[in-house]
Amino acid sequence: MTKIVIDGLGADRGPDMVASACKAALEKRKFDLVVVGPEEAFKKELQDFGDRVEYINCEDLLENTESPARAIRQHKSSSLVQAFRRLNEEDCQVMLSAGSSGALLAGGYFITGRIPHVDRCPFMVSLPNARKGTALFLDAGATMDSSPKMLVQYAYMADTYARYALKRTDPKVGLLNVGSEEGKGDKRTLEAYKLLQGSDLNFAGNLEGQDLLATDCDIILADGFTGNVTLKALEGVIHLMVDKGKKVFYSQAKDKGMDPETMKVLKQEMGMFDLHQKGRGGAPLLGLRKPVYKAHGSSDAVAFANAIDEALDYAESGASEYIKDHFQEIEEE
Amino acid sequence: MTKIVIDGLGADRGPDMVASACKAALEKRKFDLVVVGPEEAFKKELQDFGDRVEYINCEDLLENTESPARAIRQHKSSSLVQAFRRLNEEDCQVMLSAGSSGALLAGGYFITGRIPHVDRCPFMVSLPNARKGTALFLDAGATMDSSPKMLVQYAYMADTYARYALKRTDPKVGLLNVGSEEGKGDKRTLEAYKLLQGSDLNFAGNLEGQDLLATDCDIILADGFTGNVTLKALEGVIHLMVDKGKKVFYSQAKDKGMDPETMKVLKQEMGMFDLHQKGRGGAPLLGLRKPVYKAHGSSDAVAFANAIDEALDYAESGASEYIKDHFQEIEEE
Repeated sequence: MTKIVIDGLGADRGPDMVASACKAALEKRKFDLVVVGPEEAFKKELQDFGDRVEYINCEDLLENTESPARAIRQHKSSSLVQAFRRLNEEDCQVMLSAGSSGALLAGGYFITGRIPHVDRCPFMVSLPNARKGTALFLDAGATMDSSPKMLVQYAYMADTYARYALKRTDPKVGLLNVGSEEGKGDKRTLEAYKLLQGSDLNFAGNLEGQDLLATDCDIILADGFTGNVTLKALEGVIHLMVDKGKKVFYSQAKDKGMDPETMKVLKQEMGMFDLHQKGRGGAPLLGLRKPVYKAHGSSDAVAFANAIDEALDYAESGASEYIKDHFQEIEEE
Repeated sequence: MTKIVIDGLGADRGPDMVASACKAALEKRKFDLVVVGPEEAFKKELQDFGDRVEYINCEDLLENTESPARAIRQHKSSSLVQAFRRLNEEDCQVMLSAGSSGALLAGGYFITGRIPHVDRCPFMVSLPNARKGTALFLDAGATMDSSPKMLVQYAYMADTYARYALKRTDPKVGLLNVGSEEGKGDKRTLEAYKLLQGSDLNFAGNLEGQDLLATDCDIILADGFTGNVTLKALEGVIHLMVDKGKKVFYSQAKDKGMDPETMKVLKQEMGMFDLHQKGRGGAPLLGLRKPVYKAHGSSDAVAFANAIDEALDYAESGASEYIKDHFQEIEEE
C-alpha cells in the first residue's frame, strides 16, 4: 500500500482545509497517510480511517523567508522538515506540501537529496492544451541560470514522467524559444537545441510563446526564469479575461433571460483555462531520491484532494525509479 | 512638415493595403510622404495628394532569410534598403515598414546606425493595461543575451519616449522578474536591479508575469528573449480565449435572442485585449540615429494607418533627439 506523507500546515487556507481534503481522498482511494500537523484537528476529521492514518503532532509552520535553505536547517521542528524526514524512512513513498516553492526545493535538496548525476531539480506543471488536454511544462521556476545541459536533463525526467505517470507514447519534446526555426534563440537555447537534437529524445524542435496552449508537444522545455515569468503571465491574462467576462454577465445578463444552454457551453469551453483543475492540482519536483509533490499554496479542499491523487499516481507509476535508472545508465556509459 | 518614408512592400497583405492606409492617413493628418514600392499602384491611389507624395519605384521585396544582415548588404535595390537610405537624407524624419523584425534591425544597425553609446536597440511594444490604458514593454525580441547594462539603457530610452511621445509624468519603471521582492531573479535581473536602483530613473522594483496587463508601471523591462516569449504567450492565450468565446456565441446564441446590450458591453470590455488597436499599431526600434517604426507584418489598412500615425507622433515628439541628448550627456560625465 502506498504511504504518503502530507505537510498539514503550509497551505494558505490552513490545516482544516487539508484535513477535509485528506478525508475526501481517503474515502475515494486506497492508500496510507502520515499527516504532520495539529493532531487534534486531524484526528477529529480522520478518526473513521483508523490505522490507515498516522499522526505526527506539529503546530510549527515554516515561515516563508528570504533564505529557505537556512530556514530548513534551523527549523527542524517545522511541519515541512518533519514531513521530509518522515519521507526518508523506508515505508513512505511520496511527500506532498502546499508550502512555498523555495522551502520545498531546499528541503528536497538538503533532506531528501537529489538522484545521483541530476544537476538541478525542476518544478513541472501541467498546462492546458487545446489539442491534447495537457502538456507538461518545466522548469516552472526552481532554478535560475540553468545551463543547456540542465535543460536536457529536465527533458529526460519529463519524458520518463510522461511515459510512466501519464502513459504517453513516445512523448514529443519542444523547446520554448523566440522562433520556430533552428538557429533562433539565445546562447542557452541554441546550445540546448544541439544537445536535444543529438539525444535519443523525440525532439520536435522549437516552439514559440503563442503555441504554449496549443502545441502538439507533450513536453515544453524552458529555463526556470522564462518558465516562471511565462506561466505567471498566462495565469494573469486568463484571470483578467475571465474576470472581465464574468462581470459583464453578472451586471448585464442576469435578469435578461440569458440562454442557460449558452452559459453552460461557455463555462465548459472556458474550463480548459482553469489552471487548477484535476490533473493540475500541483507540480512534481523532479529528480529527487523520492517523489515530492507541491500543491498550490492557494488550494481549496478540492484542489488539494486532486493534488493527493496526482502525488499518489506519480508514486505508483514508478516514474521516479525509472528516472533514477536513466541517470544511473548515463553514469555507466 | 514631417516627412515619413514608408516601405511599400513587406506587409503580408501587399502594397495595395499599404496604399489604402497611406491614403487614409494623408486625409487625416498633415505630413509629407515618400513611398518606396510599385509606383503605378501607389500613384493610382494617392494622385489627389500632389507633391505631398514622392514615389520611389521599386518591386524588389527583401526576402525573409536566416541572415538579415547579409540580405541587407546584398539587396541594395530592395524596398527596405531604399527606404532606410532615403531616411538617411536630411529632409526625412522617420521610416515605417511592416517587414521582418530581423531585417529592420539589420537595416537600422547598418544603414541608419545607432546613437553613439547605445549598445543595442530594443523593440518596444505598447501592452494593454487594466489600470492605465497602456504600458510600454521592451525588449520585445531585438537582442538575445542582453546584459544588465543594456536593460538600463532600454529603461532610459523608454523613459524618454514615455515622457515626450506619450506625455507621461515621471514614468515608473518595473523589472519583469520571478518574484516581487529584491533578491529574486537570475544573474541578469539581480544585477539590473542594482543598476536601476542606483540610477535616477523612477524605478519601482520587480514585477511578476501576472502583473503584465495590470501593473501601475509605465514601463516594463525584460531582456529580448523573455520579452519575446512572454509577448507571444499573451497573444496566444488571448487569441485562443477570444476564439473559443466567439465560437460559443456564434454556434449557440445567434438565434436565441442574445441580449444585444450584453454583447455590446462584452465586446467593449474585451477590446482591451485587442493587441493591434490604435496606439498599438506597431513598435518603435529605439536607439537609432533617426526614428524607425515597425508595423505588424499582418497589419490590415486600419492597423497600418494607426502605425503611420504613431510613427509620426514619435518623430514629432522629439523623443529620439532627447534620447540622443541623454547618451551624449552620459559620455560627457
